[in-house]
Amino acid sequence: MGFAQALPLKSGAVLPSYELVYETYGTLNADRSNAVLVCHALNASHHVAGYHADAQGQPLPKSAGWWDNLIGPGKPVDTDRFFVIGVNNLGSCFGSSGPTHVNPATGQPWGADFPVVTVEDWVNAQARLLDALGIEQLAAVLGGSLGGMQTLSWTLQYPERVRHAVVVASAPNLTAENIAFNEVARRAIVTDPDFHGGHYLRHGTLPRRGLRIARMIGHITYLSDDVMNEKFGRQLRASSEQGLDALEQALAPVAPLAYRYTTQDVEFQIESYLRYQGDKFSEYFDANTYLLITRALDYFDPAREYDGQLSAALARARARFLVVSFTTDWRFSPARSREMVKALLENRRDVSYAEIDAPHGHDAFLLDDPRYHAAVRAYFEREVAA
Amino acid sequence: MGFAQALPLKSGAVLPSYELVYETYGTLNADRSNAVLVCHALNASHHVAGYHADAQGQPLPKSAGWWDNLIGPGKPVDTDRFFVIGVNNLGSCFGSSGPTHVNPATGQPWGADFPVVTVEDWVNAQARLLDALGIEQLAAVLGGSLGGMQTLSWTLQYPERVRHAVVVASAPNLTAENIAFNEVARRAIVTDPDFHGGHYLRHGTLPRRGLRIARMIGHITYLSDDVMNEKFGRQLRASSEQGLDALEQALAPVAPLAYRYTTQDVEFQIESYLRYQGDKFSEYFDANTYLLITRALDYFDPAREYDGQLSAALARARARFLVVSFTTDWRFSPARSREMVKALLENRRDVSYAEIDAPHGHDAFLLDDPRYHAAVRAYFEREVAA
Repeated sequence: MGFAQALPLKSGAVLPSYELVYETYGTLNADRSNAVLVCHALNASHHVAGYHADAQGQPLPKSAGWWDNLIGPGKPVDTDRFFVIGVNNLGSCFGSSGPTHVNPATGQPWGADFPVVTVEDWVNAQARLLDALGIEQLAAVLGGSLGGMQTLSWTLQYPERVRHAVVVASAPNLTAENIAFNEVARRAIVTDPDFHGGHYLRHGTLPRRGLRIARMIGHITYLSDDVMNEKFGRQLRASSEQGLDALEQALAPVAPLAYRYTTQDVEFQIESYLRYQGDKFSEYFDANTYLLITRALDYFDPAREYDGQLSAALARARARFLVVSFTTDWRFSPARSREMVKALLENRRDVSYAEIDAPHGHDAFLLDDPRYHAAVRAYFEREVAA
Repeated sequence: MGFAQALPLKSGAVLPSYELVYETYGTLNADRSNAVLVCHALNASHHVAGYHADAQGQPLPKSAGWWDNLIGPGKPVDTDRFFVIGVNNLGSCFGSSGPTHVNPATGQPWGADFPVVTVEDWVNAQARLLDALGIEQLAAVLGGSLGGMQTLSWTLQYPERVRHAVVVASAPNLTAENIAFNEVARRAIVTDPDFHGGHYLRHGTLPRRGLRIARMIGHITYLSDDVMNEKFGRQLRASSEQGLDALEQALAPVAPLAYRYTTQDVEFQIESYLRYQGDKFSEYFDANTYLLITRALDYFDPAREYDGQLSAALARARARFLVVSFTTDWRFSPARSREMVKALLENRRDVSYAEIDAPHGHDAFLLDDPRYHAAVRAYFEREVAA
């Protein structure tokens, strides 16, 4: 959907006009009271549920919506009951206006000139989409990780428009360590000689080396140490001479052969897996988008304007909350979720909190852990639909 | 010291001749029974204690030995009593034979052709140094992190030559997550266009971009989340326009100014700090050495030849042990130290274990935490000197 009205951004810049792509699932009811907005995280899009052909260039059936296990007919967020909206954020490379699009002022791709966008800007843009769809109030906003930050921000920017907020595997801001990982990933991209200050499209290049490193770093932080040991451990892997393709090589464990003693080639299965993930990502993700989205993560900090007092920052919220965290998530740890719960309770808000004992680290929010899904299902059935 | 006798390596390769540089502190006693060997970790050298001018190009007084707070006259490892030997390992870039040296067979720098060296190879080379120094048995071997792996290996390769082994902040092998971090760092180096397959010296280049990224990743994993939050938190930093030099900028916190909204420039203090550390490291460290040393870490796994049974692998050890770990060390966690302690106890070995409640993460082993230093002092006074 195109928006001709300029969008003022938190940075002071203004986006003159823009496009937002979105997908919906289910049917909006007569009084327009059953809409659920789903906010995406770093590497996702408006393709939230169902199957589609054009996501990230992957063939079916891998192009299932990124939260298809949670959202759909009869699923925990039941699209027989709710009208679910997935929207792609500004700055993305999956359809909405972003750095790969043409800057109308210059006729050239925006590249590094695309303005810095924040969680608050995304929420403002999403609110305009809802205006256009004729939805005054959301039954719920739902998001994980960076999507959880948008969810929280919705309750602060538009308190009257959100009845329920479901914040999964998120945090009220990033820790120094989180910012540090983002920064290393950005440096890998920005110092890639093919980056050209962010104007690589004009130079006919792509900073794939940097994107690969960025994705490898990200992947390590999405998994728990335990699950990595269980999945990969210290297993060696088959060599490319055995005629396996990249994914087969990545996933094929081999018997405890002798070490090959190499510094540049793959020796352990975990290395092969990470290289595969990095290669794949670098084929479809835009480097400037990576910079923008990690910066949106870094900048989000609603307590900042309240001298660091989260409780004061959340006083505006009117929604009822479900907050979910995962025990082995060291990127957005349960302690960070508990900070939000505490601040909400200090404001006498209604909060349900589920701390799920799951082994999968931050990635758990995308997986179908039965206790996690049961908690979301129960909340939507008993609270949101009530 | 030059060694003309070829050194057979674990990989099957042979190092025809080589140089080992070392430093000693204190005096070897008449019966040669007071020698303590100190093994270094990734980024260190034979400059263990005291002050020196040529270490890593740093001016005095920053060139203190890397374990000067622990080792010296009257210190926990008291050089008035012990004869301490610091030795630089093969493959290093701080003096002993390594990739920056000339390969006698070709007259060119070794570069990527320097053979892969393992913890076991280092120990064998160190043993020859002791032979040359006329030291049959060590009062103690002492090392942290990768140095702790060498210490453990000493007790397995030369059980009769080690009376005491002090293993600090170490592990019996790397976890998948540790290998993963090493691999990302190596990929950053190897995919730097200035790497030239490891023969950058012949090309007159240095893969500084890759080294910077590698060091930034390393730094994050050496610190705990807590200490990073305490030191840097979400503080913004002074800009270069304020005329500060790089280190001042890195360390100067600024008042809670407005965000500058930038994806490529520094915004947070932690970013500045990491960039500074990466820049500094890339000026003095050799990329091929980085690959070799991280691979030595990856490969170390004494239980591997015993079907993963650490207890069986450690049955050869005869030394008495002090094992030290730090509660916030997530790179070499206390659980990994406890594995070693358990395996040693199963072999009825004498083991003291100190789990130090320290906030500093893996870096703690280089800092002068009083409880940690007291434990080492007590062990050397009561056990090693006894």
